[in-house]
Amino acid sequence: MTAYRIGIDMGGTAIKLALLDERLRILWETTVDNRPRGTPRVLVERIAGALRGRLTGVRSVGLGVAGDIDAERGIVRFSPNLGLHDAPLGPLLKKALKKPVSVHNDAKAAAWGIFKTQVPARVRHVVVLTLGTGVGGGIILNGKLHLGATGSAGEVGHMVIVPGGRPCHCGSRGCLEAYVGGVYLVREARSILASGRGKIIRRLAGGNPLNITPRLLNQAARRGDPAARRLWREAGAKLGLGISNLVNVLNPERVVLTGGLAAAHPLFLPAALKTARKAAFKAPFRAVTITIAQRARNIGVVGAALLAD
Amino acid sequence: MTAYRIGIDMGGTAIKLALLDERLRILWETTVDNRPRGTPRVLVERIAGALRGRLTGVRSVGLGVAGDIDAERGIVRFSPNLGLHDAPLGPLLKKALKKPVSVHNDAKAAAWGIFKTQVPARVRHVVVLTLGTGVGGGIILNGKLHLGATGSAGEVGHMVIVPGGRPCHCGSRGCLEAYVGGVYLVREARSILASGRGKIIRRLAGGNPLNITPRLLNQAARRGDPAARRLWREAGAKLGLGISNLVNVLNPERVVLTGGLAAAHPLFLPAALKTARKAAFKAPFRAVTITIAQRARNIGVVGAALLAD
Repeated sequence: MTAYRIGIDMGGTAIKLALLDERLRILWETTVDNRPRGTPRVLVERIAGALRGRLTGVRSVGLGVAGDIDAERGIVRFSPNLGLHDAPLGPLLKKALKKPVSVHNDAKAAAWGIFKTQVPARVRHVVVLTLGTGVGGGIILNGKLHLGATGSAGEVGHMVIVPGGRPCHCGSRGCLEAYVGGVYLVREARSILASGRGKIIRRLAGGNPLNITPRLLNQAARRGDPAARRLWREAGAKLGLGISNLVNVLNPERVVLTGGLAAAHPLFLPAALKTARKAAFKAPFRAVTITIAQRARNIGVVGAALLAD
Repeated sequence: MTAYRIGIDMGGTAIKLALLDERLRILWETTVDNRPRGTPRVLVERIAGALRGRLTGVRSVGLGVAGDIDAERGIVRFSPNLGLHDAPLGPLLKKALKKPVSVHNDAKAAAWGIFKTQVPARVRHVVVLTLGTGVGGGIILNGKLHLGATGSAGEVGHMVIVPGGRPCHCGSRGCLEAYVGGVYLVREARSILASGRGKIIRRLAGGNPLNITPRLLNQAARRGDPAARRLWREAGAKLGLGISNLVNVLNPERVVLTGGLAAAHPLFLPAALKTARKAAFKAPFRAVTITIAQRARNIGVVGAALLAD
């Protein structure tokens, strides 16, 4: 019997690995350091080292990597986090492990994990929005992960929401991410402090704007800081426009919000729903359920493992 | 042998009908008046009357209707143009014609017609944008028309491009359609005249702003009217943002522009491409070809017929 799966989530600082049984229970897991930056061969050695003696009964290995991935050929085309360019991690890993290996974008892997483990089987069209440092996503249509022509589909964080708006690190302006991503929320909060508002933010940050994190902004808002509350509401309104665009274009049955910022949903979701309801067409808006993903520490690993099937 | 197909394109003023052979050649076609507005039964009688004696050898009938369609059940949920609400045109037509009948949104039918007759078979992900009075569309993914949860997918004209921007007839603000749709271009041109600019527009319109049409604005721009040229460029820039969003989210191999306004592409496409190139991610933008559909008078009828398969 070879019914087990290996899932791997490779980030810039750590590699998470897990062995899953056929019911997706985690039989074994580990995290290994992924620093300093390595060549593709070094990265494969780190993974192979961590998996030594763990491959009995394993039928497939799925790897999720932050970046632009050619899933068909298992190549990491570009990963700023990992410093990789056209890295053939899939073929190298297959050779090292002697197992079928699939490589996908990490946000898509997490989206797939949510789709397979948190959404009823009758639901076939799902958009997952990952609200973290940036805004990523995964689109499942007709029960399949939509990859698109080059595997780049699902970059929902880079829909332009405000033409000529805030500069986005992607080089464009006014992207959804530049209004909703954690990095941008923190930046916005710093300019709030600079203007003398945000007393509770300041206090929680010990007076140092460098201590501001999205989690701190969540706390500040829950303690009643008006500037922090408004920050989340405004991010929510922009998110609502993004959701509305996705609803009008794709007509999904479900939009699932996940990622580190999703925990702050009481602060931004009402504004998002209000804006989306106004902007979206009635029929598709009525048909969509907008939910917060259940907390699932290993969803990226599980999703990567399941994408290997 | 029953290899023939009937395609029908029902608009607010006329119904176009055609009989197609297996190679999609039009063997017979007609147009019948669709006024005054009728109940679903009256509309079906008009169609059945036009098709009398033409159904020998016909295997299926496909109907395209402007509006929100429940394709699964053949129901026109809402068509402002035709004044229909929850009209079971599919079942009624099936009963009247004794043939399998499918009902789809007209823009989606046209998109499908373009996909099946103007795009190489290897191309599997296509977005068709219909630039007319409004902006409609059809999305083909993995070689299939993407309908979504309620058949409402593809409302690309109602992506919000400018938050809080121009009011759109859909009730929202800042929709792509409100910057690119013919109705809005004409409205914009009228305010240009009101401000004393647009001399060539005024001359072509015989001094009467009510004579302005998108075709006239095309002529005025080609004759060098700076205000008209700018109008198209600005519409092009907004279209480019819409295309960029679709490229980042869906990663299609092709975006095809069609509809009455597409003829003016030399005036707006360069600006659209420039904006889209800036706003979109590199890999998916490199992978997409943006083209103008070939003129095809009957593409809506052909597409409707082909969707019946």
